[in-house]
Amino acid sequence: MINIFLLLALLSFTSDAAVNDFCVAELKGPDSPSGYHCKPPKSVTVDDFVFSGFVAGNTTNIFHAELTSTVVTDFPGLNGLGVSAARLDIAKGGAVPMHTHPAATELLIMVEGQITAGFVTPFEVYKKTLKAGDVMVFPQGLLHFQVNSGKGKASAFLAFSSANPGVQLLDLVLFGNSLSSELIAQTTFLDVAQVKKLKARFGGRG
Amino acid sequence: MINIFLLLALLSFTSDAAVNDFCVAELKGPDSPSGYHCKPPKSVTVDDFVFSGFVAGNTTNIFHAELTSTVVTDFPGLNGLGVSAARLDIAKGGAVPMHTHPAATELLIMVEGQITAGFVTPFEVYKKTLKAGDVMVFPQGLLHFQVNSGKGKASAFLAFSSANPGVQLLDLVLFGNSLSSELIAQTTFLDVAQVKKLKARFGGRG
Amino acid sequence: MINIFLLLALLSFTSDAAVNDFCVAELKGPDSPSGYHCKPPKSVTVDDFVFSGFVAGNTTNIFHAELTSTVVTDFPGLNGLGVSAARLDIAKGGAVPMHTHPAATELLIMVEGQITAGFVTPFEVYKKTLKAGDVMVFPQGLLHFQVNSGKGKASAFLAFSSANPGVQLLDLVLFGNSLSSELIAQTTFLDVAQVKKLKARFGGRG
Amino acid sequence: MINIFLLLALLSFTSDAAVNDFCVAELKGPDSPSGYHCKPPKSVTVDDFVFSGFVAGNTTNIFHAELTSTVVTDFPGLNGLGVSAARLDIAKGGAVPMHTHPAATELLIMVEGQITAGFVTPFEVYKKTLKAGDVMVFPQGLLHFQVNSGKGKASAFLAFSSANPGVQLLDLVLFGNSLSSELIAQTTFLDVAQVKKLKARFGGRG
Amino acid sequence: MINIFLLLALLSFTSDAAVNDFCVAELKGPDSPSGYHCKPPKSVTVDDFVFSGFVAGNTTNIFHAELTSTVVTDFPGLNGLGVSAARLDIAKGGAVPMHTHPAATELLIMVEGQITAGFVTPFEVYKKTLKAGDVMVFPQGLLHFQVNSGKGKASAFLAFSSANPGVQLLDLVLFGNSLSSELIAQTTFLDVAQVKKLKARFGGRG
Amino acid sequence: MINIFLLLALLSFTSDAAVNDFCVAELKGPDSPSGYHCKPPKSVTVDDFVFSGFVAGNTTNIFHAELTSTVVTDFPGLNGLGVSAARLDIAKGGAVPMHTHPAATELLIMVEGQITAGFVTPFEVYKKTLKAGDVMVFPQGLLHFQVNSGKGKASAFLAFSSANPGVQLLDLVLFGNSLSSELIAQTTFLDVAQVKKLKARFGGRG
Repeated sequence: MINIFLLLALLSFTSDAAVNDFCVAELKGPDSPSGYHCKPPKSVTVDDFVFSGFVAGNTTNIFHAELTSTVVTDFPGLNGLGVSAARLDIAKGGAVPMHTHPAATELLIMVEGQITAGFVTPFEVYKKTLKAGDVMVFPQGLLHFQVNSGKGKASAFLAFSSANPGVQLLDLVLFGNSLSSELIAQTTFLDVAQVKKLKARFGGRG
Repeated sequence: MINIFLLLALLSFTSDAAVNDFCVAELKGPDSPSGYHCKPPKSVTVDDFVFSGFVAGNTTNIFHAELTSTVVTDFPGLNGLGVSAARLDIAKGGAVPMHTHPAATELLIMVEGQITAGFVTPFEVYKKTLKAGDVMVFPQGLLHFQVNSGKGKASAFLAFSSANPGVQLLDLVLFGNSLSSELIAQTTFLDVAQVKKLKARFGGRG
Repeated sequence: MINIFLLLALLSFTSDAAVNDFCVAELKGPDSPSGYHCKPPKSVTVDDFVFSGFVAGNTTNIFHAELTSTVVTDFPGLNGLGVSAARLDIAKGGAVPMHTHPAATELLIMVEGQITAGFVTPFEVYKKTLKAGDVMVFPQGLLHFQVNSGKGKASAFLAFSSANPGVQLLDLVLFGNSLSSELIAQTTFLDVAQVKKLKARFGGRG
Repeated sequence: MINIFLLLALLSFTSDAAVNDFCVAELKGPDSPSGYHCKPPKSVTVDDFVFSGFVAGNTTNIFHAELTSTVVTDFPGLNGLGVSAARLDIAKGGAVPMHTHPAATELLIMVEGQITAGFVTPFEVYKKTLKAGDVMVFPQGLLHFQVNSGKGKASAFLAFSSANPGVQLLDLVLFGNSLSSELIAQTTFLDVAQVKKLKARFGGRG
Repeated sequence: MINIFLLLALLSFTSDAAVNDFCVAELKGPDSPSGYHCKPPKSVTVDDFVFSGFVAGNTTNIFHAELTSTVVTDFPGLNGLGVSAARLDIAKGGAVPMHTHPAATELLIMVEGQITAGFVTPFEVYKKTLKAGDVMVFPQGLLHFQVNSGKGKASAFLAFSSANPGVQLLDLVLFGNSLSSELIAQTTFLDVAQVKKLKARFGGRG
Repeated sequence: MINIFLLLALLSFTSDAAVNDFCVAELKGPDSPSGYHCKPPKSVTVDDFVFSGFVAGNTTNIFHAELTSTVVTDFPGLNGLGVSAARLDIAKGGAVPMHTHPAATELLIMVEGQITAGFVTPFEVYKKTLKAGDVMVFPQGLLHFQVNSGKGKASAFLAFSSANPGVQLLDLVLFGNSLSSELIAQTTFLDVAQVKKLKARFGGRG
């Protein structure tokens, strides 16, 4: 019969130096360019690798849409692994407006309903109407949108190529901060009146 | 009025050197460690970024399970972007047996039914029973499995942190090739009779 | 005296396999996610590593600005090295409008005049008035702008953390392609009249 | 004569900000996805870059084999450098059983004796009998083995493409933890009796 | 009117988990292979992204040259972004002697005067005389130099493909430390008298 | 009995798209920043993953040393895997002179004899006398050397963190090409007479 201690000797394992080939985030500590510190392996449980909560989102808001995401800050097992996910629900007539993810490609997997989605580059549009079973990819950093173009609600799952993708919603980035209306107009060619109207809607100051 | 040609001059754009911030795979050419060559931007269409075919899989096989994946070889827009996806259907009593993805982390998003899934390391098991709305991550390179532990069919979507993740199914790797039964037994501690039985089932030669 | 041939033997050098620790782009061939193929080392000259042409740009256009960039497609020695550069000239009253580089951080080094530059995130603005000797960094993928806020012309050098950074100019991305005015309005909350006005200026179709 | 202080001024060196182009691990602190924190350069000595202890391993165990490895946790100079090493000794009749390194390629350099080594993929085996002077590579994440197929002892040095490669020994991963015999059988197609026999040998619980 | 709180709900933003798509260095903490920890986003200001001090360097030293660099240790916004910069001033007759940057490619943008610059490999020299408007790239890790070959002062800006490039000045590396003259002579083929002469000039001990 | 064709259906395998989780170099084609193209999987054999030829080197040259390396250009299975190896033999009194590997860390594993090895940075030396069983790491891009300091021959194995590490031997880089003696003297502070003497020995022109 094999002696388990001899086996351990073979592999030079010690309780302190055990390598588990993962690095679950210690979320109480600081972040870094490569992610969070690793929790001690002995304090890791399966719940670090499971997230519960992708239920149908509440779309009774002005967008008629809801995005529920799970990234490393609420799903510590993703730390250092380069993936995260979200659930998207859009009621009839709703839309996820123009936005970018500066550090992640997005993959959209249709579950229900019909969504017209696309991304834009100078001079070109890559746009498609998607139904259940379709998958669409939005390359990293490019401006994209999703519109419910069907007759009922629509839902999809999203995957990202980063454990912590940011969301830069164009309207918030332009109209939700303290950039002056004149500077926005000068750098976007929008009319000042249009800018002021949207700053009022999106909470812009100054 | 702004002259579009002046605008182009501003950005030093030329038709030949246009950068579109993506690299759609030219699948007729060779692969490389970083992926396929880029198709000329002018020949790229939205269909390079959309995959259609995630329908319910046919589970009338011996596993009572079906995995439908979309990777760069059939979804060229994924080239260089580090993500891909799959749909998993498991009938009652079915299972996806032990396997690894040597170059990708897997994220499983439950859609319907109940799946008991897990990954294993020396001395530890990270196992959980999942229902609709749960998400589980299987770190890169670790052996994992998914079993339908519910009373009906189960389905899930999978995302991978690679545009072209390989699948190393343990039974095929051990029993589906020409490794001799004696060598398998010597390097796994399985009984030779057990090895021969499984080689017969999985098509192993020699 | 040392025999050079013995020396070569020591290092296992052969004329075919010589490694020069660089990979100059063969621009006639295809691009890939990691860059272009390497030219044969014997055909490489110092001119592959030198670009000439950062002269004062012609700013007699509607922006009163000119960006002259040198990226791998006209500077093959940059291939695989993760850097490129540009020269920026802005006449009095001019501006480089809102834009992103999806795959590169930008570093701006002021040479002459005064530029007010910044980048924006949801709810926050990082904006500064820069003079000769100042350096500002614009993190990868974030929307940013540069405005000549001085009394004369301004010039700066830019460095990018990519050999081939794309430029996504917001006005071109929104108003220079075939995206319909209605869809733009729905996904940006701009008024349709504003959208149509800018589509006319930036060459948008449909 | 050159004044050393002028020289330092030239290079903008200060004692606090000195960059030494290495990052020796501070092993008392936490790990992260990119490795350990850097020790202060002033406390670094040559001993951080040297490991002593690759002596002939004790092979008087049931495997007739011994693997002595040096990774970042006992060789702090490796931190962030992407390499580590091991010494392998296998007595006559011994073997290193099937295992994977999820995050590292392995390079084996034969020193003495004869080893039959190989890695396996679905349907294919890449197997060779190696003697002193042979080198074999086992690509990242693939299942592989080494068997002493000679008439005496065998030894080799191993190099890994990671400063901290994990070892997933197949028998321990399947039979050394608390996964139930029934679940193992269901996900491997092994007979339950075989599973129970091996769980007893490898210390599996439940 | 859109309610900003509903908008936030849409994006699952919370004040604690806000992702800003940058990681400004917390310079009081330790470094790591991927850079410094991130400062809390709320304490970040625009001044973290701006460096002031690229004035004409003082070249009244023995080299007639001055290099003023800005790297992550004095410009925290660069953390994790893979770029940094320097200003180079060389008086008539001055030079930056042979050196390498082990972890960064260097891009030199000429501003004023004339510099003869180059990098060297076994058997080949890549050397060019540069004037205002020229750009030259020095691939990572290769030995290179810059000499003022003009009739007046010369200046240039440098960009590096690392937030913290080290500088290995050949004379300091060979003659500025405690390596014995005999060992230097043995490993460089320089005469011992030459070595001792330069050790005296560059502060070498022993 | 399991039907192998159903099994293949489960995994969506097709003969054309098989992923084998390796990319063996097609050496007849061009190189790229990420390595060579992949050979078609069907033409790959185990011999692509095995190199034979690490025999004791011929040290009857002026260095009394021989370095036998195996990199991707003669060991195609290394392509994209980030490791390579070499065997080093140094006769009594011999040495490997000062050199760098711009793109690779080196790990030295002592086999026989005694070697005094080290790497140098401005102001510091990291030097140690090594015997059988010792391992030393030389961080990427730093100047280092190995001297046989024992009473007999010495041998070691080397591993590199790159499939194709270059070797920049300091004497060849300074004295083996067409850089003029005056320019070398100006950028190294060596005496012109010393430079000319070494140019004569190392084959320098001009």
